[in-house]
Amino acid sequence: MAGIEDVARAAGVSTATVSRALRGLPNVSDATRRRVLAEATRLGYVPTPSASSLATGRTRTIGLLTPWVSRWFFANVIEGAERALRDVGYDVLLHTFVVRRDEPRRRVDPDVLRHRVDGTLVVGLPLDDDEVRSLVGLDRPLAFVGSGPDDQVTVRLDDVATGYAATRHLLDLGHRVVGHVTGVPDLVSSWSPPAERSLGYVRALAEAGVDVDRELEANGDFDVEGGRASTAELLRRRPDVTAVFAASDEMAMGALLAARDLGLRVPEDLSVVGVDGHDLGEVAGLTTVAQDAYQQGADAALLLLEMVNGAPVPQRLTYPTELVRRRSTGPPRAS
Amino acid sequence: MAGIEDVARAAGVSTATVSRALRGLPNVSDATRRRVLAEATRLGYVPTPSASSLATGRTRTIGLLTPWVSRWFFANVIEGAERALRDVGYDVLLHTFVVRRDEPRRRVDPDVLRHRVDGTLVVGLPLDDDEVRSLVGLDRPLAFVGSGPDDQVTVRLDDVATGYAATRHLLDLGHRVVGHVTGVPDLVSSWSPPAERSLGYVRALAEAGVDVDRELEANGDFDVEGGRASTAELLRRRPDVTAVFAASDEMAMGALLAARDLGLRVPEDLSVVGVDGHDLGEVAGLTTVAQDAYQQGADAALLLLEMVNGAPVPQRLTYPTELVRRRSTGPPRAS
Repeated sequence: MAGIEDVARAAGVSTATVSRALRGLPNVSDATRRRVLAEATRLGYVPTPSASSLATGRTRTIGLLTPWVSRWFFANVIEGAERALRDVGYDVLLHTFVVRRDEPRRRVDPDVLRHRVDGTLVVGLPLDDDEVRSLVGLDRPLAFVGSGPDDQVTVRLDDVATGYAATRHLLDLGHRVVGHVTGVPDLVSSWSPPAERSLGYVRALAEAGVDVDRELEANGDFDVEGGRASTAELLRRRPDVTAVFAASDEMAMGALLAARDLGLRVPEDLSVVGVDGHDLGEVAGLTTVAQDAYQQGADAALLLLEMVNGAPVPQRLTYPTELVRRRSTGPPRAS
Repeated sequence: MAGIEDVARAAGVSTATVSRALRGLPNVSDATRRRVLAEATRLGYVPTPSASSLATGRTRTIGLLTPWVSRWFFANVIEGAERALRDVGYDVLLHTFVVRRDEPRRRVDPDVLRHRVDGTLVVGLPLDDDEVRSLVGLDRPLAFVGSGPDDQVTVRLDDVATGYAATRHLLDLGHRVVGHVTGVPDLVSSWSPPAERSLGYVRALAEAGVDVDRELEANGDFDVEGGRASTAELLRRRPDVTAVFAASDEMAMGALLAARDLGLRVPEDLSVVGVDGHDLGEVAGLTTVAQDAYQQGADAALLLLEMVNGAPVPQRLTYPTELVRRRSTGPPRAS
C-alpha cells in the first residue's frame, strides 16, 4: 500500500502538506489540495489507523445497510465492498433490514451510525426521503449501490435498459404475449430497480406495437418461491403467455420450477429470461441479462473512501449489462 | 423485549441486584448470579446500549470472521447471525479472509478486534492454533460455526455422518465406483468439514466392502467451477465412475455441468449428490444432504450473547441433516 511519502513525492509537496490537505486543515491552496487528493486516490493511499484516528477522529469503519445477505446480488455486492475496504484497512459494520410485503420495515436510525462510521453504503435498500435526509444529516459520505435517489452518489445499472434488453430478446424470438414477474411494488421510492425494469419491459412492448396489459404482471418477491408462485398464478390467469421476463435470476429460476410443476417444456412451451448472471444460471440453462455485482460493490466502496478523503467523485457510475443466451429461451410454440 | 424488571421479577431479586449480577460486580452470591443469568438468558434480556456501555464498557458489537460472503453456507449463516443480533440491538463487524489454494491467507489480527467487540463468531474459517490462542487471548467470548477446535464452543454438523449419509445413498442405489469431490485440503486444522466429510465417505465405502482409492478423490475448491473442473478430471482419470459425492451443493452443481459438458446423462450415466440444501438445488434437480445454515448462524449468535452475559452454554450444538432425493441420483447404468 502507498505511504504518505509516495503521495508527497507524486504531488510534489511535503508530507506535512499531504497530511494537512487530507485532514482538511487550512493553509493549503485549493489547487494543492486537489492534487494531493488526486494522487492519494490514484495511489490508493489511506492514512494509517492510529495517526488518522488521532488526527481526524476517523473510525476506519463503513456502515453497510442492506435488506439481505443471502440473495445473489446482495451477497456479491457485500463481498466486493468488504474486500475492497479490507484491502485498505477499513471495517464493515453490517446492518440488515428485513423487507417483507406484509409488514412495515424497521426504519433507518442514524444514531446507530453516528460516531461509529466514516461513511455509509446503502445496498439495494429502498429508503424514503426522511431516511435519506437523516443519513445526509450525519454529515458523513453516503453512497448507494443498486438503486438510489437522483441527488446522491449511486452505483447501479441502467435498469430501464436492462428491462428493455430482456423483453426485446423475447420479442425478437417472436413472442407476443410476454408475462413479467417483478418485485415488491416499492411504495416509498420511485428509483427502485423493479419499477425501472418494468418500465423497460413496457417500452419494449410498446415499441413493438404489442399491447401492454397489467394482467401480464405478477409480484414474485425477488426470490425463488415467489417467482414460482407468481408464474403459476400468471399462467392460470393468462394461459396464452409464451414467455416470461423475470426481474431477477432467482425469480426466473422459480419460473422454471413453475413450468416444470405445470408440465410445460422450456423453451418450447415457455421461454424464461432473468436479470443478474447468477453463478448457478448455467446449471439451470437460464438466459439472463448479466451484471457484475461484486465489482459494483468494490467500486462503490472505493468511491465512498474517496469521498471520505474529500476527493470529488462522479455522481453516478452506471454499469454495463450483457445478454447471455442459454436454453431457457427460444421461439414460441406457434411460430 | 424483556426489561430489567422482568428479569428481577423472574429471579425474585431487585433490579439493582440484576444489574450487579450481570455486570459481574461483587456482593452477589453465586447462586443468585446463576439464577439472574438463567432468567436473563431465558427471557432474552440484553441491557440497553447506553446503560450497559457506561456500566460495562460493552460495545454491543460482535466480530464475525469468515472467508466468504457470497457462497451459500456463509451467506445464510451471516444473515441468520446478523438478524438474531440485530433483534437485540447488536451490530456485526464483518471481516473476510480470502482463502485460496495458491496463496497464503491473511492471518487473524486480534488487535483489530480489541476494544471493538464483545465477542467473536468464526464462520467456516480454518484457523491455526496460534490464531485461536490469539482470539482466546482477547478475553472475550468466542464461538465457531461450521467447524471449530474441540475445546471451543462450536455450532456445526456431524460432518462424518453427513459424508457417510451421502455415500451410503449412492451405495444403496448400487454404485460401486464412487468419486468424491472435496474441498481445499486444510493444512492447518484437522477439524475442517471437508476432512470429516471425506472420512464419512471412506467409512461408508469400507463398511460396504468397496475398495477406497485416492484416485477417486479430487479437489473442487468448494465452488461451481472447481466442482466442474475436478469432476471432469476425475472422469478422465477413472471413466468407470458412475456416481460422485460432492462435499457441497455448489461443487455438485459443477459436477452436473461437467456431466453435461461430457455428454453424460444424469443420473443414467452419472449420479451426483451434494451437501447443503442450496435454495437452487430443486431447479437443478440435485439430490443433497440438507442442513439449515441460517438457523446455525442465528443460534450461534444467541449462544455467543449468552456467553457475553456470563451464562453457561453447551460446548457444542450439533445440527441434524436430511437426505433430500431428487433426480440427480439413480441406479448405475450397469444394473
